[in-house]
Amino acid sequence: MEIVVQKYGGSSVANAERIRHVAGRVIKEKRKGRHVVVVVSALGDTTDELIELAHQITLKPSDREMDMLLSTGEQVSVALLAMAIQEQGEKAVSFTGPQIGILTDPFHTKARILGMDTTRIHKALRAGNIVVVAGFQGKTKSGEITTLGRGGSDLTAVALAKSLKARHCEIYTDVDGVYTADPRIVADARKIDVISYEEILEMASLGAKVMHNRSVEVGKKFNVPIYVRNSRHFKEGTLITKESKQMEDVTVRGVALTEDEAKITLFRVPDRPGIAATLFKRLADAKVNIDMIIQNKTETKTTDISFTVYKEELRKALEVVKEAARDLKAGNMTCDENIAKISIVGIGMRSHSGIASKMFGALARKKINIDMISTSEIKISCVVDGKKGRLAAQTIHKEFGLDKAKR
Amino acid sequence: MEIVVQKYGGSSVANAERIRHVAGRVIKEKRKGRHVVVVVSALGDTTDELIELAHQITLKPSDREMDMLLSTGEQVSVALLAMAIQEQGEKAVSFTGPQIGILTDPFHTKARILGMDTTRIHKALRAGNIVVVAGFQGKTKSGEITTLGRGGSDLTAVALAKSLKARHCEIYTDVDGVYTADPRIVADARKIDVISYEEILEMASLGAKVMHNRSVEVGKKFNVPIYVRNSRHFKEGTLITKESKQMEDVTVRGVALTEDEAKITLFRVPDRPGIAATLFKRLADAKVNIDMIIQNKTETKTTDISFTVYKEELRKALEVVKEAARDLKAGNMTCDENIAKISIVGIGMRSHSGIASKMFGALARKKINIDMISTSEIKISCVVDGKKGRLAAQTIHKEFGLDKAKR
Repeated sequence: MEIVVQKYGGSSVANAERIRHVAGRVIKEKRKGRHVVVVVSALGDTTDELIELAHQITLKPSDREMDMLLSTGEQVSVALLAMAIQEQGEKAVSFTGPQIGILTDPFHTKARILGMDTTRIHKALRAGNIVVVAGFQGKTKSGEITTLGRGGSDLTAVALAKSLKARHCEIYTDVDGVYTADPRIVADARKIDVISYEEILEMASLGAKVMHNRSVEVGKKFNVPIYVRNSRHFKEGTLITKESKQMEDVTVRGVALTEDEAKITLFRVPDRPGIAATLFKRLADAKVNIDMIIQNKTETKTTDISFTVYKEELRKALEVVKEAARDLKAGNMTCDENIAKISIVGIGMRSHSGIASKMFGALARKKINIDMISTSEIKISCVVDGKKGRLAAQTIHKEFGLDKAKR
Repeated sequence: MEIVVQKYGGSSVANAERIRHVAGRVIKEKRKGRHVVVVVSALGDTTDELIELAHQITLKPSDREMDMLLSTGEQVSVALLAMAIQEQGEKAVSFTGPQIGILTDPFHTKARILGMDTTRIHKALRAGNIVVVAGFQGKTKSGEITTLGRGGSDLTAVALAKSLKARHCEIYTDVDGVYTADPRIVADARKIDVISYEEILEMASLGAKVMHNRSVEVGKKFNVPIYVRNSRHFKEGTLITKESKQMEDVTVRGVALTEDEAKITLFRVPDRPGIAATLFKRLADAKVNIDMIIQNKTETKTTDISFTVYKEELRKALEVVKEAARDLKAGNMTCDENIAKISIVGIGMRSHSGIASKMFGALARKKINIDMISTSEIKISCVVDGKKGRLAAQTIHKEFGLDKAKR
């Protein structure tokens, strides 16, 4: 019999009523004649409440004990969901991560799954059970309880789908799927029906967070089809899958706007080998993440270097750059927090030309000046004036017909 | 190095402040140069809250899923206590019951401990840790999570003390120890310093609940000295241990009053072999617990049978007895809910005579009529008028000098 893995997030199981609703959905899937394995997160705000409890005791809880504490959240969820399924007349059995041998490395609070033993799950499925598995958790070889960090329950679900050779993995959230743009910014954004792993990875890195990248990467690595769906209704959602010829017909899959970066420019940096390396090594050592980098040679012996950092790391970045500027005998430094980055993503770019010029042209017609440009194989990003970010997103969304096409 | 096992109940770890307090006590014990293993219950009302959550889903949760749910309570406690100990500068590590291999039978919600593997605990202790263990829980041979039922954390502690060959087991509660009588009834009741397993088992069965009998029985079986102490201060508490010659000097260890029983009398029961057996078999089949039984032969061919049952089972008992009376062709039936049972307990009774007459004499002087009498080797119980129960308890407590003696 085919196996389907479903995963429900914390908001989908926030109270008894929603848990009953999820139980009903799961049973519906089972009655299609499939084996169902359900992964659940902790109820609603449980994880935050547990963290708050820990912080009442100490501001620096040890990672090992934090995992011991947080893993209880999912254990409560699986017991309650199993009860709800039984109450509605189907057989169900719940398991913790350690119980089904989800083996991880020993890095508490951010462990990586090394493997799992599906014997117990297969046995329970054969006995006619819906199997309910606690997401987000595992154990080390020596029996320590670990958690998988942010997006951990998605990761559990995708890894289970892979190990169980499931037909696919369904990730239930409170949105309908992945959109061509953020609907709060672009009113006529449309839900995307099918998207490739590569595209969603780029879009997630641009701030369009539906799923955590780690889970998509696991899905990509093992070719697990992932459906992102809304747990409140039965619409189709978005299928994340490997790219196909057909997908390339669409040049631009989506548009993303990020407004959380700032641009730093360091002028008149001596133009010698190794100078840029020194600057960015120092920033890396200070754990400052760099996004875009542009270097313009201006005069004969110096160059200007611009780059963007996340606003929350700006203060730290400025300290490092100021010191580096002195040591490197560079000129003055400017900082612009009022920028926006507008990006288009699509695997079709590989085989279609003229996408960049079409994007630049559309911006030009709206008199939006482009400050920085960066491209990858399936992405083009432009930094523009922060006040014009939303207009840029709307303009480009329309330019590539994302408001119209059935996708 | 000597090992000490301490157990703290839910009220002792009800909030962050109390958890910190417990951490301080545990560290104090460790700094005496001992290895410390601490068993904790779920925080405050957590267990009740989890039960309430389950009942929002279903009124008949399966026992397996209930264990899955309830065992999270203790897991939260051990993580938080370990954090609090670390915060105060000592090494600590927490374990769930399954993690340290507390092996039980498969009877969910009331499992019995079959054994445990102390390897991990010994290793953690040798590494300088205070070991914090989740009470109340274990796992079956096939890896199912089980709970031990009422008083389960005490049981974990006593069983651990036995397996670890601990110096003793300390049970921390919110009372100072075991008393010669309930201080709310007998104002000059005194704390008992030392009491035998047998005596406390009798007293517990008489309603003087400090510890659950299952834990005392395990302590008795494996000769684990158990201290009952108050977690709020450092007074000595009560030591529960095997009986010694010295203990026999005290004839009466304590006085217990129970007011939760009712008396049923069935008159003119045909005096033939097997009649009483039939009656009590039927009551047993209906799961009615019988405490005292008295049979008085009154006329030539019939007998009167009186017995006491718990008030909460009275209605059920009366139905059974009414039907049996008809079948056995007995006479009428009376029921008295207004009774009290006053009992004295002490291993010294074995070697001292005249204890019973002293008890009866004291009651007589206060004009308290005795309705029923029952005795065991170390206990004498009398049923009296319910309105005179408290007076009887006070009278007997004084008669045996329990208000004075240092014990």
